[in-house]
Amino acid sequence: MGVKQVKVRDTILMGGKLSVCSALVAKSETELMYQAETVYEKKPDVIEWRVDFFEQIHHTDAVITTAAKLREKVGNIPLLLTIRSEKEGGEPIPLDERETVDLLKRVCETNSADLVDYELEQHPADIEALLHTAKAHGVKVILSYHSFDKTPSEADMLAKLEKAAAYQADIGKLAVMPVNMTDVLSVLKVTQQSYEQMDIPVITMSMGADGALTRLVGWKFGSALTFAVGSQSSAPGQIPMEVVKQVEEYLQNK
Amino acid sequence: MGVKQVKVRDTILMGGKLSVCSALVAKSETELMYQAETVYEKKPDVIEWRVDFFEQIHHTDAVITTAAKLREKVGNIPLLLTIRSEKEGGEPIPLDERETVDLLKRVCETNSADLVDYELEQHPADIEALLHTAKAHGVKVILSYHSFDKTPSEADMLAKLEKAAAYQADIGKLAVMPVNMTDVLSVLKVTQQSYEQMDIPVITMSMGADGALTRLVGWKFGSALTFAVGSQSSAPGQIPMEVVKQVEEYLQNK
Repeated sequence: MGVKQVKVRDTILMGGKLSVCSALVAKSETELMYQAETVYEKKPDVIEWRVDFFEQIHHTDAVITTAAKLREKVGNIPLLLTIRSEKEGGEPIPLDERETVDLLKRVCETNSADLVDYELEQHPADIEALLHTAKAHGVKVILSYHSFDKTPSEADMLAKLEKAAAYQADIGKLAVMPVNMTDVLSVLKVTQQSYEQMDIPVITMSMGADGALTRLVGWKFGSALTFAVGSQSSAPGQIPMEVVKQVEEYLQNK
Repeated sequence: MGVKQVKVRDTILMGGKLSVCSALVAKSETELMYQAETVYEKKPDVIEWRVDFFEQIHHTDAVITTAAKLREKVGNIPLLLTIRSEKEGGEPIPLDERETVDLLKRVCETNSADLVDYELEQHPADIEALLHTAKAHGVKVILSYHSFDKTPSEADMLAKLEKAAAYQADIGKLAVMPVNMTDVLSVLKVTQQSYEQMDIPVITMSMGADGALTRLVGWKFGSALTFAVGSQSSAPGQIPMEVVKQVEEYLQNK
């Protein structure tokens, strides 16, 4: 077993323990700050800023300035910055892939976030360039894979997570839609296998109502982070943070 | 697929929908009535009377009379009567197996309960005699298997549930202790396979802290009933009924 945990500020992300992330999905800075306040009070382990929702995404300086204001609001809670592509469930944005990567690199260079999320299926050169810049500035990188129409085979899902590890990402992430409960079992199984076999922590979830249980119990099988609703949902099947935290108590070994 | 559901009074027990059972584990009739009142207010789908806790278990008439009083307390909520053997996690009782079966048969003949639980590993002649009497009086029978030290192989667990079906029990039940999270996955997988392949509904659970999640989410994979704490816990890993019911809302298809 390799290094299975990632430390971000004072937060350790690893399988076998519950860590909760809440997303901010605001269009304007005003709305973003409002959501940040609401979410901050609920004490998530990580706060994600989904910049693909932000109407000023095309102004790099506005993103950097706003990130700094966000930092003031969220104190020492690790900040994850994500520009989810439309293809993988994000909002339409006015940036092409080159501009997206440039923005993420600028975020890293200015230490405007503690973690950034980038997609595993983007061009290898872009992924490697971002990883290079992020590592140079101590920013952690989550490489993520999404499938909104089906759940790939267990072998394919493992291969995606292993690809993230091969890139030397800090964390691999998998979010897939089930068509039946067998798919949900597959995700739990892949989570557990990754946790046992891989060198980096993984974040996994099965989406929608049938998959929602993975958001509650995935950490028991080795998922290092679960996305829960703090202010507004950012993906299908998310559960309120309070509920996820309440259940933790009954599932943990004492 | 055969008949996958059992109707008891106005309650339908089947996989894919949450039904919650709370156990009464009192020594005296007074304590039993107190627990029944507490539990009744929480509106479980089934109430189990664990008669192995009852200090008058050796007085058949006292059991029958007390069951009648219990019925008055719990209204139309189905009543499950269980005499768990010490070997399978119950309390020590002053009855031998012959007397235990005789008591259960008397419970059926007097319609003192809607369901009775008996153990799959008891003598076939006892099981068949009880099933015969129960069916003659319209009482449903759960045939149950427990393992408190380990989780059998998936094949062995399926075989236990199939054995219950072969006896023509109304429901098969499996409660096993995990030694790791792979065991917990196995129980979920067996649950789902049984739900897809078998002719009777099944009730499954993985016990202890690691298995506790099966008590929350097992119904999504096909478990027809989950045991939750209404008044006092009756097995390791049980979760309060309120929590189980609260989570249901986020896991169900709408």
